[in-house]
Amino acid sequence: MDTWIAVDWGTSNLRAWKMGADGRAVEEAGSDAGMGTLDRDGFEPALLALIEPWLTEGEVTPAVACGMVGARQGWVEAAYARAPCPPVSAGGFVRAPVKDPRFSFHIVPGVQQSGPDDVMRGEETQVAGFLKKEPDFDGVLCLPGTHTKWVHISAGEIVSFNTFMTGEMFALLSKNSVLRHSVTSDGWDEAEFDAAVETALSKPEQAAANLFRIRAGSLLSGLEPAAARARLSGLLVGMELAGSKPYWLGRDLVLIGNKSLSANYRRALSLCGLEAREADASEMTLSGLSQAHADLTKAGVPL
Amino acid sequence: MDTWIAVDWGTSNLRAWKMGADGRAVEEAGSDAGMGTLDRDGFEPALLALIEPWLTEGEVTPAVACGMVGARQGWVEAAYARAPCPPVSAGGFVRAPVKDPRFSFHIVPGVQQSGPDDVMRGEETQVAGFLKKEPDFDGVLCLPGTHTKWVHISAGEIVSFNTFMTGEMFALLSKNSVLRHSVTSDGWDEAEFDAAVETALSKPEQAAANLFRIRAGSLLSGLEPAAARARLSGLLVGMELAGSKPYWLGRDLVLIGNKSLSANYRRALSLCGLEAREADASEMTLSGLSQAHADLTKAGVPL
Repeated sequence: MDTWIAVDWGTSNLRAWKMGADGRAVEEAGSDAGMGTLDRDGFEPALLALIEPWLTEGEVTPAVACGMVGARQGWVEAAYARAPCPPVSAGGFVRAPVKDPRFSFHIVPGVQQSGPDDVMRGEETQVAGFLKKEPDFDGVLCLPGTHTKWVHISAGEIVSFNTFMTGEMFALLSKNSVLRHSVTSDGWDEAEFDAAVETALSKPEQAAANLFRIRAGSLLSGLEPAAARARLSGLLVGMELAGSKPYWLGRDLVLIGNKSLSANYRRALSLCGLEAREADASEMTLSGLSQAHADLTKAGVPL
Repeated sequence: MDTWIAVDWGTSNLRAWKMGADGRAVEEAGSDAGMGTLDRDGFEPALLALIEPWLTEGEVTPAVACGMVGARQGWVEAAYARAPCPPVSAGGFVRAPVKDPRFSFHIVPGVQQSGPDDVMRGEETQVAGFLKKEPDFDGVLCLPGTHTKWVHISAGEIVSFNTFMTGEMFALLSKNSVLRHSVTSDGWDEAEFDAAVETALSKPEQAAANLFRIRAGSLLSGLEPAAARARLSGLLVGMELAGSKPYWLGRDLVLIGNKSLSANYRRALSLCGLEAREADASEMTLSGLSQAHADLTKAGVPL
């Protein structure tokens, strides 16, 4: 009965881990059955397709999930906790109705902020995972991704946070805009990235003009696809650093994200004179879900 | 033999006018056979589908065209003129090979700029049309669109110009990003637009964060779809005005674009204390093509 299942269920991906008695993942499975691809009846079958082999007849194995699965368009809506608040607290978990008697499904709520309005779903669990490792952390966590989050942490709570659409803008501009004719490579050019970060930091208001110059540069000056891609990324990350300065300036800053994206943010921040630390995103997610599972058990929530 | 055909051939649309002896359009036709939808063999049939009824057996009716039809991916590439230069000069026209003996096809070249790199195709013809009306104009023309151009004019020449991808970003963000769930209306909210312009003017570096707040606002604060749409537009136009300030500050400024888009720019500029004039885009295009046709005739180019 010590076995449980950790689930990270985002808009475009689903990942699940079978957790052993020692708190470590013993099996892992994933699919592209993200929340955005499913209607309400699709969630249970999509999950069972991954976790069925881990279930035991006559036992109820609890699953604890974070991410967009708890959104209004998800399986069951989990109302947001309100910042300032701890990233995860036992009170707000929502249970999804499942037909299969061999498991139960519990969703970690996201966090909202008023004035200015902002929301997160999934990142709060990574924050909880990080705070398990560094409970006295006082500083800022940056979680780069489709919607990058900057989260101010103090006294074990999320004090405030700020979301930037940088990752989604990079995806749209590189794949769906006129720049797709210039960004035709997965390559990279570090010097071009650095120069673009500096350009955007000094003139963020020129963003829409500097973006078009990528196209003009490949038409007129032989700008290479790898350089075009790095420049696009540098312009967007640089603009984000200009805008998020109140979050990172003079702070203890830790990046939690996939390795290559975190490396870009780390490099751009070093151009601003700040040496950020890094933590592994998957590890933080699993650690946060373990914390949530422990909280649920402690609170006597029937699993 | 005084009849000729004016053609405005962009990436997504094709428009043609039968021009009478008095220099006015007597017939008009259009289709969505834009340059982006055609391979090289597709251009002549696409044009004939519109102009066939205007052609006369045994005569060669000249057609004069501007726009992306002259791009590398167009019918025939028309090499860019280099700014500083007059918007249209007889030297650079390129003739496309046509099979039908009843017409000839001449393309107005675009204009390029080095340092910083920039390009235009089609706008130079509108600029020429405007200068026909106001030959002594000394100031700036703003041509709002998918890729908005700011063009500094002096002594009948394009001195310099600057392209902003504002229109394309609006289209991508409102239709393909997470904001599509918030911008579900064609409605408008003038006060929301004004507020967003002011926000972007004062903090352009916050663009990617302010964009996400549109989504958060509709999730948490009941931001209405029409208000979301106006806010998205205001944030992008405001950022552009912050970035194009060296172009418009203290200048005689004329907007050339479609009516509703020009009205938005005009309103945003008035928040900056600048009263811009407006000129009709179609009228400027036709006037510029007439100028090009006259130049061709005068230069003795065999039509």
